[in-house]
Amino acid sequence: MPAMSVAEIEQFLARVFPQALGHGFVIERVDERGSTLVMTTDERHLRPGGTVQGPILMSLADTGAYLAILGHLGPLALAVTSSLEMHFLRKAESGTLVAQTRLVKVGQRLVVAQVDLSRRGEDEPVAISTVTYTLPSRGGA
Amino acid sequence: MPAMSVAEIEQFLARVFPQALGHGFVIERVDERGSTLVMTTDERHLRPGGTVQGPILMSLADTGAYLAILGHLGPLALAVTSSLEMHFLRKAESGTLVAQTRLVKVGQRLVVAQVDLSRRGEDEPVAISTVTYTLPSRGGA
Amino acid sequence: MPAMSVAEIEQFLARVFPQALGHGFVIERVDERGSTLVMTTDERHLRPGGTVQGPILMSLADTGAYLAILGHLGPLALAVTSSLEMHFLRKAESGTLVAQTRLVKVGQRLVVAQVDLSRRGEDEPVAISTVTYTLPSRGGA
Amino acid sequence: MPAMSVAEIEQFLARVFPQALGHGFVIERVDERGSTLVMTTDERHLRPGGTVQGPILMSLADTGAYLAILGHLGPLALAVTSSLEMHFLRKAESGTLVAQTRLVKVGQRLVVAQVDLSRRGEDEPVAISTVTYTLPSRGGA
Repeated sequence: MPAMSVAEIEQFLARVFPQALGHGFVIERVDERGSTLVMTTDERHLRPGGTVQGPILMSLADTGAYLAILGHLGPLALAVTSSLEMHFLRKAESGTLVAQTRLVKVGQRLVVAQVDLSRRGEDEPVAISTVTYTLPSRGGA
Repeated sequence: MPAMSVAEIEQFLARVFPQALGHGFVIERVDERGSTLVMTTDERHLRPGGTVQGPILMSLADTGAYLAILGHLGPLALAVTSSLEMHFLRKAESGTLVAQTRLVKVGQRLVVAQVDLSRRGEDEPVAISTVTYTLPSRGGA
Repeated sequence: MPAMSVAEIEQFLARVFPQALGHGFVIERVDERGSTLVMTTDERHLRPGGTVQGPILMSLADTGAYLAILGHLGPLALAVTSSLEMHFLRKAESGTLVAQTRLVKVGQRLVVAQVDLSRRGEDEPVAISTVTYTLPSRGGA
Repeated sequence: MPAMSVAEIEQFLARVFPQALGHGFVIERVDERGSTLVMTTDERHLRPGGTVQGPILMSLADTGAYLAILGHLGPLALAVTSSLEMHFLRKAESGTLVAQTRLVKVGQRLVVAQVDLSRRGEDEPVAISTVTYTLPSRGGA
């Protein structure tokens, strides 16, 4: 069972971090092992050549990882991204992008998540990302 | 001598990639070795706890690296980010953020740039980034 | 069908890159989508606290990715690692380590591979890696 | 003043982590802000095409960062690498390689270091790396 349901996460974000879902991001799934976050691209999101801008993809990965942490650990407003790497693999053309997050480590201090981004219905990812969050101390140093 | 002046880059971006300077980014310097890009943060950019959102910082790094490529190689609309890594080191509070880009490799196919982000007037960076761009073929495969 | 069998790869490596399997690495599988490379750790490989040394794990990931490229594209002695990132997730204690490589992009110029490293028989990875190789030009610039 | 001198670090490593200087690595400088570590390459270290093997360079970066931590914080045998990224920029031919480490963050839990690797006497780096270490708890969780 996830620590928070999608509805609880939406309420939590609306209160503490309303920008999190600001690019038209929609939460599709959150459970204790990961999350699925989707967005439908529009003109604002594109770079020359019609590729979705990198920072939008990175925002999707960062938010997807954050949702997975909420799903695993519950409401932690102060979990903070400590690093994010992204590899841009293919032209991300307009359409619906799906960010699948998988938690690969949930430690006392660090969470590491892998995020695959792909267009809805396609197998090959347009980008892959590894995101690390630092957790607030839980009753200690 | 840079391949393009700041004014030429601004005109080029206005034509092919108007979103590039969309968060209030201001080009302060571009030369053949790197660039300086600044932004003044406001409420929209902040996360819970008052930190500037990661994707804004990543956008700053990505754009700073792109400007440095334009300064070194001239107008290449189709240079595409192939990877971006960022380490978030300190709380980036509101104020003026400065992204200093240094080109560490300009190859036939790949450009690698390091970007240091810091608050104006402070020594310690709030984030560091390494950005890789793939270049369009120049008369060949 | 892979471009080269395990036996062909072993012969190729013995000729052009004998150090590749130098830490006791054993090729278990190579096909057009990835590879499996294993090693059994011994005292030489350990750090204080009994963790396998990071560079050994990185060597395993780098070699696993190289094998996957050989399996996909055939004998390319001059494919060169352009970047490698690794996240060390858990103490990698002595035993048999398995590196599973999955090719996520095979382009004209770049190959991107993800490598999961885990102890034989365990689900949770001890480390994850993303490796990028640059390919030699094929009949062009 | 560094927390440990080069001689103290050499004694500490000989006791707790003798492999650290195992590839012929020589400590040239350690202070509270970073370190300089050098190696002279030989045949064992080379890949096809004469490039120094990536894992050797990664070992140099990892060890350089560890030395810098010792110089800043004193003897911490259990500081553990949590991530390492390296970009390979130019062919690292045989000769003397110099790894310059700069600590960019020393926090309660994490240290982030940047390492530039270049051939002695040359300006342009052959590789750049960012290394993150997790610190053991100091009197707490």
